[in-house]
Amino acid sequence: MSRSDILAVDAMGGDHAPESIISGLDIAALRHPQAKFLIFGDEARVAPLIAATRRLKNNCEFRHAGETISGDMKPTVALRLRDSSLRRAIDSVLSGEAAGVISAGNTGALLALSKIVLKTLKGIDRPAMAAIAPSARGDVVMLDLGLNVVYDARNLVEFALMGEQFARIVLGQPAPTIGLLNIGSEEGKGDETLRNAAAMLRDSPIAKQFQGFIEGHDIAAGTVHVVVTDGFTGNVALKTGEGALKFVGGLIREVFVAGPFAKIGYLFARGSLRRLKKTLDPRRYNGAVLLGLNGVVVKSHGGTDAMGFAHAVDVALDMTGNDFNSRIAEGLAAMDRALLSAETATDPNV
Amino acid sequence: MSRSDILAVDAMGGDHAPESIISGLDIAALRHPQAKFLIFGDEARVAPLIAATRRLKNNCEFRHAGETISGDMKPTVALRLRDSSLRRAIDSVLSGEAAGVISAGNTGALLALSKIVLKTLKGIDRPAMAAIAPSARGDVVMLDLGLNVVYDARNLVEFALMGEQFARIVLGQPAPTIGLLNIGSEEGKGDETLRNAAAMLRDSPIAKQFQGFIEGHDIAAGTVHVVVTDGFTGNVALKTGEGALKFVGGLIREVFVAGPFAKIGYLFARGSLRRLKKTLDPRRYNGAVLLGLNGVVVKSHGGTDAMGFAHAVDVALDMTGNDFNSRIAEGLAAMDRALLSAETATDPNV
Repeated sequence: MSRSDILAVDAMGGDHAPESIISGLDIAALRHPQAKFLIFGDEARVAPLIAATRRLKNNCEFRHAGETISGDMKPTVALRLRDSSLRRAIDSVLSGEAAGVISAGNTGALLALSKIVLKTLKGIDRPAMAAIAPSARGDVVMLDLGLNVVYDARNLVEFALMGEQFARIVLGQPAPTIGLLNIGSEEGKGDETLRNAAAMLRDSPIAKQFQGFIEGHDIAAGTVHVVVTDGFTGNVALKTGEGALKFVGGLIREVFVAGPFAKIGYLFARGSLRRLKKTLDPRRYNGAVLLGLNGVVVKSHGGTDAMGFAHAVDVALDMTGNDFNSRIAEGLAAMDRALLSAETATDPNV
Repeated sequence: MSRSDILAVDAMGGDHAPESIISGLDIAALRHPQAKFLIFGDEARVAPLIAATRRLKNNCEFRHAGETISGDMKPTVALRLRDSSLRRAIDSVLSGEAAGVISAGNTGALLALSKIVLKTLKGIDRPAMAAIAPSARGDVVMLDLGLNVVYDARNLVEFALMGEQFARIVLGQPAPTIGLLNIGSEEGKGDETLRNAAAMLRDSPIAKQFQGFIEGHDIAAGTVHVVVTDGFTGNVALKTGEGALKFVGGLIREVFVAGPFAKIGYLFARGSLRRLKKTLDPRRYNGAVLLGLNGVVVKSHGGTDAMGFAHAVDVALDMTGNDFNSRIAEGLAAMDRALLSAETATDPNV
């Protein structure tokens, strides 16, 4: 068994843990027979659930963890718990036993522990959170989604580089296009940080894929494969888009209970309405990835069910199986060479 | 005729001007028989269109303007054109002839000219752009939408105050609720500017209406009546939400052409699907308002049709008829008294 098939799982994080986590892993175990899960949690609660699974029980190793990090625990407090299920899972990535870790628990604690235990990848200043979202032209990748409220142009360029590799793996795009989120597509729009980041990307090894500035409506239009932005804007944009989709979902349901004719209409259109629902199912987009750490770290929505958690496992195994971090290191080195030669070329003193 | 019924109109701005503008005004003239429109534009093109209207020709006064500001003209260039249709329309608000101005043309030129000619309201540091958006609990107001990429806590508080008065008028809410857009609803979330703005709002005359921080998904959920944010975030959020709605609209259309059964389904559900379409019709939300200037200034989408332009006229007349600016002045004075007394109460030297 290759190390890239081994995933550490925090069984205690999330609104419906550990039940939804173990059920989700059972679905994942059927989909990925080669994978092995190192499951950390409270033995009294988790072991009986594992014993009752169809497939997972043969593909996992359970380890008791004496502490649990609650959803509202401050990261500073969570950091002190050495035997929490989350900490133990992350430790197993540091020790090299597992290639990645997945948790549906406390986001702040997951980020803080991952950064402290696993450390940031060489050459990456700040990790970023990325996720996949639906668009009119297929799925797109968006980052950062909330980790970096303070950032500079170089950070945005690193996000672009990490997002590009992420999109290659999870979208299967050989040369994903990239856009910087702004309030207009003209070159002079936005603040200096955005304009500097755009200038650096135009001199970078991914210059051909860089489409310049994009606007909010370009996200769902699928104008680019990778939407790059700061953590504040990305978090607001992702949640605004999710909220809008949920709002329309509610309106569509109302349409078909509006009266007897509409109900008959539903019966006829049921098949294609189900496909629509599936396209927009938030569980299909579950699994945000913390990029830029020494190890694959995946955050599942706390409120998701087994199906959603299984999807987050898909994402994690996609990342560990494709050696994401080595690719990033190569991309960074090429980026630095290109930026250096661009500086040299424009420096009159050379 | 009261001055509040007189609206100055730039007939030359917008992708389908002057045709869509004059047709839109004709619809508006039927809806608002008391209103009078001062129309500025190129006589050779506009006068024949007016002559062919049903109602508008009796409710307007046309004035020839020798110049037109194109959509891609830089504001600095636009400012020099003294006889442009936009400039002449704004001038008529300054002179007191009209209570407000409406244009579907160049946003940058409209903002620059409005600020220079009309000036900012006393006590308001920066004007803001506000618009109405649909939500699961009825329409909501959102601002700023792109004017202020640089801002401080006091600016956000002024946006909240202007948004509150705007929501009273356009939503008819007697005590609209207000939320500050952030990446989490907990008190410690976001940067210092957001936390300071929240603290000031908690000490303000609208403290009871202030619901604290909200997140992106709260916009379409309709958690609050007024969504307050900076211009960069607001612009991205509005366009992201519009893009998501458009995306789902496309998917819904696909559902009902998917096959013979779906087409029959459409026939049965047609009535309620039409209501859904109407709820989400972007023309119903056309008409962004520049708040904080001496005079009502309304920007219509450049690409809208006559129906959309007529809706923007509705918004403009709602604003002029309800004496928005006097209400803002009163609100500001009350705010300053409240903030001053809060400072005095907490200052140990007093």
